[in-house]
Amino acid sequence: MSNNRIEAFSDGVIAIIITIMVLELKVPHGDTLAALLPEIPVFLSYLLSFIYVGIYWNNHHHLLHVCERVSGPILWANLHLLFWLSLFPLATAWMGEHHRAVAPSAAYGAVLLMAAIAWWILQQAIIASQGSESLLKAAVGRDWKGKLSPVLYVLGIAAAFWSAPLSQGLYLLVAALWFVPDRRIERALVTDPARAEPEA
Amino acid sequence: MSNNRIEAFSDGVIAIIITIMVLELKVPHGDTLAALLPEIPVFLSYLLSFIYVGIYWNNHHHLLHVCERVSGPILWANLHLLFWLSLFPLATAWMGEHHRAVAPSAAYGAVLLMAAIAWWILQQAIIASQGSESLLKAAVGRDWKGKLSPVLYVLGIAAAFWSAPLSQGLYLLVAALWFVPDRRIERALVTDPARAEPEA
Amino acid sequence: MSNNRIEAFSDGVIAIIITIMVLELKVPHGDTLAALLPEIPVFLSYLLSFIYVGIYWNNHHHLLHVCERVSGPILWANLHLLFWLSLFPLATAWMGEHHRAVAPSAAYGAVLLMAAIAWWILQQAIIASQGSESLLKAAVGRDWKGKLSPVLYVLGIAAAFWSAPLSQGLYLLVAALWFVPDRRIERALVTDPARAEPEA
Amino acid sequence: MSNNRIEAFSDGVIAIIITIMVLELKVPHGDTLAALLPEIPVFLSYLLSFIYVGIYWNNHHHLLHVCERVSGPILWANLHLLFWLSLFPLATAWMGEHHRAVAPSAAYGAVLLMAAIAWWILQQAIIASQGSESLLKAAVGRDWKGKLSPVLYVLGIAAAFWSAPLSQGLYLLVAALWFVPDRRIERALVTDPARAEPEA
Repeated sequence: MSNNRIEAFSDGVIAIIITIMVLELKVPHGDTLAALLPEIPVFLSYLLSFIYVGIYWNNHHHLLHVCERVSGPILWANLHLLFWLSLFPLATAWMGEHHRAVAPSAAYGAVLLMAAIAWWILQQAIIASQGSESLLKAAVGRDWKGKLSPVLYVLGIAAAFWSAPLSQGLYLLVAALWFVPDRRIERALVTDPARAEPEA
Repeated sequence: MSNNRIEAFSDGVIAIIITIMVLELKVPHGDTLAALLPEIPVFLSYLLSFIYVGIYWNNHHHLLHVCERVSGPILWANLHLLFWLSLFPLATAWMGEHHRAVAPSAAYGAVLLMAAIAWWILQQAIIASQGSESLLKAAVGRDWKGKLSPVLYVLGIAAAFWSAPLSQGLYLLVAALWFVPDRRIERALVTDPARAEPEA
Repeated sequence: MSNNRIEAFSDGVIAIIITIMVLELKVPHGDTLAALLPEIPVFLSYLLSFIYVGIYWNNHHHLLHVCERVSGPILWANLHLLFWLSLFPLATAWMGEHHRAVAPSAAYGAVLLMAAIAWWILQQAIIASQGSESLLKAAVGRDWKGKLSPVLYVLGIAAAFWSAPLSQGLYLLVAALWFVPDRRIERALVTDPARAEPEA
Repeated sequence: MSNNRIEAFSDGVIAIIITIMVLELKVPHGDTLAALLPEIPVFLSYLLSFIYVGIYWNNHHHLLHVCERVSGPILWANLHLLFWLSLFPLATAWMGEHHRAVAPSAAYGAVLLMAAIAWWILQQAIIASQGSESLLKAAVGRDWKGKLSPVLYVLGIAAAFWSAPLSQGLYLLVAALWFVPDRRIERALVTDPARAEPEA
């Protein structure tokens, strides 16, 4: 199986996830501007998740770009990632409806954490399939963003039990860290692939 | 990243948006033709939004066609546009359900306005990435439609506080202005790309 | 605009339509096999519409296959067709819920009729763009199926006021007529395109 | 019609099915972790169906890969398969909501069984179109997994009348059997296509 097909399927699933999230935004009850007020936290949750899915879509493309041969483990690691991404609409809606409560913010963080772990597993599956000369391994380098994110998600989950807004602030911080498209893979592709320098 | 992938992803999202809008049309209560009557304003809202999304889809294709290299800012400007387009189903359903009320018609206009601004930002991001010899800049020319539309949307939002139908009429007018596919980019591609003439 | 892109977009919309129809099938109330009984008419409506959308998808592919250049009118004729197809889920759900009532069966036929008219307009738009040597015109020939279908839909709409099952039987009949993939265009492409023989 | 287009359309439909299943997971009522408890069976149903659809997507790709020419029967056999796959979200939601009841577990098995039969029909349609030298026939070999699965589904349906968890365990067992990507077709393609060895 070429990477084209897994990319096209993943793109389709991600495009659907990012779009059906909006179905969780309910038509306001009533016809006044005031009827929009209770929708604001739901809207902000949607915005945050939209950014997260946008980040995953962008980086996913770069990840598959360096993966020429799709093995069985890569295939299932990718579906595993899509599984957790598919829970974003649900987690988003729950946090949006109860933005001051402990459980929804913790659950949102748990879905983010599982997606990050699934991402890491997918990365490892591709690196393993590429062997010791792995281009992706060189491109990823020390991967401080990939290592810091789960830590911040765990902190965010813990923080939810103390203050939901603090928890949400931590999730926003991780999104901000990843917002800038990840140049590591592009850079590794540009430099001599046989001797790509690991990121400092 | 090539423009193919951003185009395929955007097409997917736009195809989903245009289709899930129909989910806001509820199955009529009752089994008589009279049960269809209250659905008529919702249906007309759906029709207007369908035309708007069709226009965006068509022009989006032309826009990306002249954009060979997709940079980070273009990527996020495009996702920003998709974000506002994704709110069309919600705004459409609200206006359809309360077609004589102020807030839903104003909110619909606000979503149209934000999409138009997002469109302008995307255009500027592509022009900036192309430098002083930008083909898109030449193709867009004075861009009177791009400049007139936001003005009409603002008028439409203001008009909603006085008369919702007038407001809706203004949104319909903008759709009519854009209905004819935009030939400027096609024309610029046909003429010598190095010396494309700006539109009068 | 090449036909690839309009085909990909249409395919996306049709794939979504055929799939979201299933969202109108509600999870049965209760946990017994008897709870499935009231779902049977809804299920049969879904099956009929699934076949219709499958037929449209298949023939749409053949139609665009002979259309090398996509003009503005073709683009909008295609979106117009997609608009009516997008109403299939709604019409299906309404007829499924009230399968013995007049209005839902008549409305279902009206949506089928509008889609058939939209199909004819799209065909004419492509023929017009191809000029007097139109390959599609030769392929379509006398188009007895294209002409008979709207007549049967009108009969079906009229029959609904007398007997809903008769009306539904007529819609089923048209589906059966089209079920066999339309070979006319394939045949015209195989024979000398410059001198394609009209269908008898 | 080339296999590219039928593959792209099927991929689109499967991507939508796998994603809209999540819409059946409802936002929990309440804002405590305890509110998640009643969602656990629904979540596990979703997980099982996600794996099933993932398996179908993966094997479907291999199936179409050996099918160069798409005939009318193959086209409809494929749509028939997609029809039963499209019922997965509904069957999943019903079993998730009533995980200890007879009918939902039996109905879930019935949908799995019908999809397996549709798969077998599609396989036969492709083999028939390829004639006596069929590459697919050689690749499939004795097809013990394809023959065992329907037997296990029937056992699962019967078991539901005695114990729903046992029934669900059998469905899980079939998923586990298929979880490993099917290498038969890949193997047959690698060996001399003219003399592919049947699987032992």
